[in-house]
Amino acid sequence: MPNNSLLHQIASPTDLKSLSDAQLQQLAEEVRQETISVVSRTGGHLGAGLGVVELTVALHHVFNTPKDRLIWDVGHQTYPHKILTGRRDQMHTLRKGGGLSGFTKRSESEYDPFGAGHSSTSISAALGMAVARDKAGEDHEVIAVIGDGAMSAGMAYEAMNNAGAMDTRLIVILNDNDMSIAPAVGAMNNYLSRLIASPRYRSFRDLMKQFASHLPEPLEAAARKTEHYARSYWTGGNFFEEMGFYYIGPVDGHRLDHLLPVLRSVRDRKENRPILIHVRTEKGKGFDSPDICEEKYHAVKRFDVATGVQEKPKPTAPTYTRVFADTLIWLAEKDSKIIGITAAMPSGTGMDRFGERFPDRMYDVGIAEQHAVTFAAGLAAEGYKPYCAIYSTFLQRAYDQVVHDVAIQKLPVRFAIDRAGLVGSDGATHAGAFDTAYLGALPNFVLMAASDEAELARMIATANLIDDAPSAFRYPRGEGTGIVLPENPKPLEIGKGRIIREGSTIALLSYGARLQECMKASEQLEARGLSTTIADARFAKPLDTALVKKLMKNHAVFITIEEGGIGGFGAHVLHYLSQHGLLENGPAVRTLCLPDLFLDHDSPDAQYHAAKLDAEAIVHTAIDALPKKKASILQPMPKRKRISKKPNAT
Amino acid sequence: MPNNSLLHQIASPTDLKSLSDAQLQQLAEEVRQETISVVSRTGGHLGAGLGVVELTVALHHVFNTPKDRLIWDVGHQTYPHKILTGRRDQMHTLRKGGGLSGFTKRSESEYDPFGAGHSSTSISAALGMAVARDKAGEDHEVIAVIGDGAMSAGMAYEAMNNAGAMDTRLIVILNDNDMSIAPAVGAMNNYLSRLIASPRYRSFRDLMKQFASHLPEPLEAAARKTEHYARSYWTGGNFFEEMGFYYIGPVDGHRLDHLLPVLRSVRDRKENRPILIHVRTEKGKGFDSPDICEEKYHAVKRFDVATGVQEKPKPTAPTYTRVFADTLIWLAEKDSKIIGITAAMPSGTGMDRFGERFPDRMYDVGIAEQHAVTFAAGLAAEGYKPYCAIYSTFLQRAYDQVVHDVAIQKLPVRFAIDRAGLVGSDGATHAGAFDTAYLGALPNFVLMAASDEAELARMIATANLIDDAPSAFRYPRGEGTGIVLPENPKPLEIGKGRIIREGSTIALLSYGARLQECMKASEQLEARGLSTTIADARFAKPLDTALVKKLMKNHAVFITIEEGGIGGFGAHVLHYLSQHGLLENGPAVRTLCLPDLFLDHDSPDAQYHAAKLDAEAIVHTAIDALPKKKASILQPMPKRKRISKKPNAT
Repeated sequence: MPNNSLLHQIASPTDLKSLSDAQLQQLAEEVRQETISVVSRTGGHLGAGLGVVELTVALHHVFNTPKDRLIWDVGHQTYPHKILTGRRDQMHTLRKGGGLSGFTKRSESEYDPFGAGHSSTSISAALGMAVARDKAGEDHEVIAVIGDGAMSAGMAYEAMNNAGAMDTRLIVILNDNDMSIAPAVGAMNNYLSRLIASPRYRSFRDLMKQFASHLPEPLEAAARKTEHYARSYWTGGNFFEEMGFYYIGPVDGHRLDHLLPVLRSVRDRKENRPILIHVRTEKGKGFDSPDICEEKYHAVKRFDVATGVQEKPKPTAPTYTRVFADTLIWLAEKDSKIIGITAAMPSGTGMDRFGERFPDRMYDVGIAEQHAVTFAAGLAAEGYKPYCAIYSTFLQRAYDQVVHDVAIQKLPVRFAIDRAGLVGSDGATHAGAFDTAYLGALPNFVLMAASDEAELARMIATANLIDDAPSAFRYPRGEGTGIVLPENPKPLEIGKGRIIREGSTIALLSYGARLQECMKASEQLEARGLSTTIADARFAKPLDTALVKKLMKNHAVFITIEEGGIGGFGAHVLHYLSQHGLLENGPAVRTLCLPDLFLDHDSPDAQYHAAKLDAEAIVHTAIDALPKKKASILQPMPKRKRISKKPNAT
Repeated sequence: MPNNSLLHQIASPTDLKSLSDAQLQQLAEEVRQETISVVSRTGGHLGAGLGVVELTVALHHVFNTPKDRLIWDVGHQTYPHKILTGRRDQMHTLRKGGGLSGFTKRSESEYDPFGAGHSSTSISAALGMAVARDKAGEDHEVIAVIGDGAMSAGMAYEAMNNAGAMDTRLIVILNDNDMSIAPAVGAMNNYLSRLIASPRYRSFRDLMKQFASHLPEPLEAAARKTEHYARSYWTGGNFFEEMGFYYIGPVDGHRLDHLLPVLRSVRDRKENRPILIHVRTEKGKGFDSPDICEEKYHAVKRFDVATGVQEKPKPTAPTYTRVFADTLIWLAEKDSKIIGITAAMPSGTGMDRFGERFPDRMYDVGIAEQHAVTFAAGLAAEGYKPYCAIYSTFLQRAYDQVVHDVAIQKLPVRFAIDRAGLVGSDGATHAGAFDTAYLGALPNFVLMAASDEAELARMIATANLIDDAPSAFRYPRGEGTGIVLPENPKPLEIGKGRIIREGSTIALLSYGARLQECMKASEQLEARGLSTTIADARFAKPLDTALVKKLMKNHAVFITIEEGGIGGFGAHVLHYLSQHGLLENGPAVRTLCLPDLFLDHDSPDAQYHAAKLDAEAIVHTAIDALPKKKASILQPMPKRKRISKKPNAT
């Protein structure tokens, strides 16, 4: 950093207040370079942050954070914000265990008044805070910054619908970069394109005219109406005004000479109504390496700043996502009823590959999980085979639709639940912890979890045959185990697990990808003289009750293990055992699942170690559960190893 | 019915095809009278159906159902539709056990292509069906009829956003009656009011002009743009056009001479784009009894057609809803931080009473559960105490917001979960079956269930003190037990249950309102010589582990019981017992919960009997679980009684 650097003088946003507009311009450029430099070392979301560098500088200069509440939707665009709000020294710890979160987080800074990770929550939260401010008789600002992709979510509309009918002061900044994670889709996006089409950006003079047309409240009804139509005509479109917002824009989000006066004007006109400032930005602005560029929509790995070349660890096996896409394509070649659906996650779910092969059979509905599921239900009602590929954590958004439109009607929608279990550097907001509990409670569902990528392929083939009920299969983030993939994945028998290894003392029943840890655990147990059975449940619903009974019968300890929270697979096993009187006089039963806490970002291995769901924990559980007599003949327990917290660059 | 009745000639919609417009008018009037007559005998939703009599007749006349798919949003307005689609003879069984559903239901009729119960799903389902039609190379119509209230839900917006960007033919009929269950709120509603304000309804000539301005596809980009602005000006607003829909309206929904030509024109112009017909109707049209009128927004009890006076069974106790409202008002008198929030259910949740007392502290955000929860989270982040009163079944809509915005951030939002458990005549779509499982899986939550209305009052007071975590309390639909209400409800000790009665052989641990059945069961058990302990868990989280241990220690059988599905309270108890090695050599443990199936509408007593969650089932479970030796000394089992399926008029 050169000697005349401004950035090193910024300990907090207070230090931005006295800077001139020209200095702010310089600062923005320094923040941009710092962001690139940080992400080159840590990996993470680059494009989103680079798109809002000027906006971040302008907001912290014009507004009085943290008293003024600044809420960033999703939160992955906040690296510049973190750099300017006292976290610059910690940026090298980004997304690493014990380090800074890749999103906003209340516990991390007073400058993060509302945490995020999922999209489209910011207007609702901001409205709540604005109402709280009014009630408390305070007068600070509440500002939500939300992307155009996030505007496709129903939740954002619900919030606008509510805010637009209230006399509450609220500033919403629409950060329109024509894409969220994937290029944005839907009518709203088309509309925004039309809105900015003719005058690509408004000139400063034109922007100020918009304020001139902004008559003071209260107005006579007639005058309001005149204004409404006049402004509709002026802005060439009035969606946001129809929603009750005062609309200003589009503003070039990379020109501080436009941003600053607009933000100052909005700040200084203390009116009690919601305002929407439409800011046009470019994702990845200022860093055009083709390698990084391709990935600018989501998180990148560490890279070389000069060349832009990303560090690429050698893949040892295809990702589960890749296997999902390939298998679905393979099935769809033969089955024209198969339809692929994604909610704005084409590359994350592998639906991009499916869509390349079958452009007419893949639907990206936008950030709209609720609609995605009921849209799929409509297709299923007409005899099609929709595969809804949604991350476990995002399927939470469509829970009612899964219950009401799919399960109650027993419609054969197939749910491909990617990112099941702990997800590493994205942390608690993205963990796929709850799906087995929230889907397992529903009648009519067939639930599967893949123990490796070959099993995943077979489960996809299995789901394809389930035409009389909804089905779901879950699989983890990242690479598979490297197992040989079947050329012709055979469907599984519904509700039947498999025994991997026969033993006599300890029985391990795994649901999902913890099977690998069970294998490791069994080796340690066998080494200590404890003969171990390993079984792969494959199904949580219907449960393989014959397998469960068999494991109960011939063992001293019976342990279930899963990559999910309480109420899931283990609960179904215990419920079955309890209802059938099999707990009485049976072996010791233990159900290992995620602990009752939200685990922060870290490497998945470290997370599972903390969750006590690794081989070590399985061994300890087994030995602890052994009847005293059996345990007394064992050798001393091995020392509990600590797993080193290696940074996880993915 | 007079001799010249047309209705008795209508066995199916086919019989409507040949009727003249004048005959259709007569038929509509007969359907209206029949609807009134039916509901006077069965109770149910009256106003919604009366509002769409003409629309129903017109749709079945103009379109070719069931080949043309007609999807009614929510489905509670479909009594006229049921009368005309071969179900007239069964209308007297409406909402009764084994009878017709109060909503649409796929299994009930081929004229119900998509079932509902919750609002705002119809456009998504219709779009799925329209895409399926295109894929199959068919050419039938897909029509969704959705109310203006339902338009406030984000899901409807997500569907429009997706449909508006597709070249798929789809007809959406906006049934605008200015209210859904409660008078509609929000900016969209204001917008619709503006839209219909100046020409209250368009004349037939004007409506036809709208078609004239509808240029054929494909159009040059420039021409399209001209059309877009021209039509915006013409219609005086273009929200739906901005969403990519061709907008027609407003049309007087009670004038067949306007409805029929508009529907015919739309039908005959086979264009591949979504069309929105804005129909203005009046809820309760044609039946203005003041008594019924007051209730026209939701289900009424049976009534006298001549006088309009509703049958009112003597209340034996206040409803849980009423106790919730009164207690919250009582608390709010002393605590200015309390805020009430409802999602379009002010009277259903009691928030109307709270809002009357504290008009500035109650927020009805519309049918927008997602927004409601995150709005509450925003308030909580600023130190307020939001009570989000949402039915268990509707809270499913906001699951991700509960996880992501409330639980992860540990924000003290209070969830008042009304209609928990089975709900009687509303059936499976409205059952509050899953909340303990889906909330119980979440770290940080305090979960309570009320065993009677006095306990509910204490739980509301308890939640008010929980400022460092989210909390929820669930309570059933309907009247309380009649217990004396505390004047000054004392907060409970967090995580502590209570013992109701001490015994020695059977232990019953109830979570929620099944406690009454436990009392009955204990009497039967005691009569047979089985000393019974009854405990009220009060909390599912944190679990009263001391109480659980105590009940495990001194009894031969330990049974948990709850009004919810698998993965809930029982799962938490079993998980605790398993993790702590308490199942080994303990008593027989049984966890009674809802069975793994969706229970159809019936009286709640009959439903709980079918679910094996009544006193009889508890007794049977206890005796079955007894160790053989103990059981052998008992008297013979009582005969299993059948509960008579009495009609349930509420």
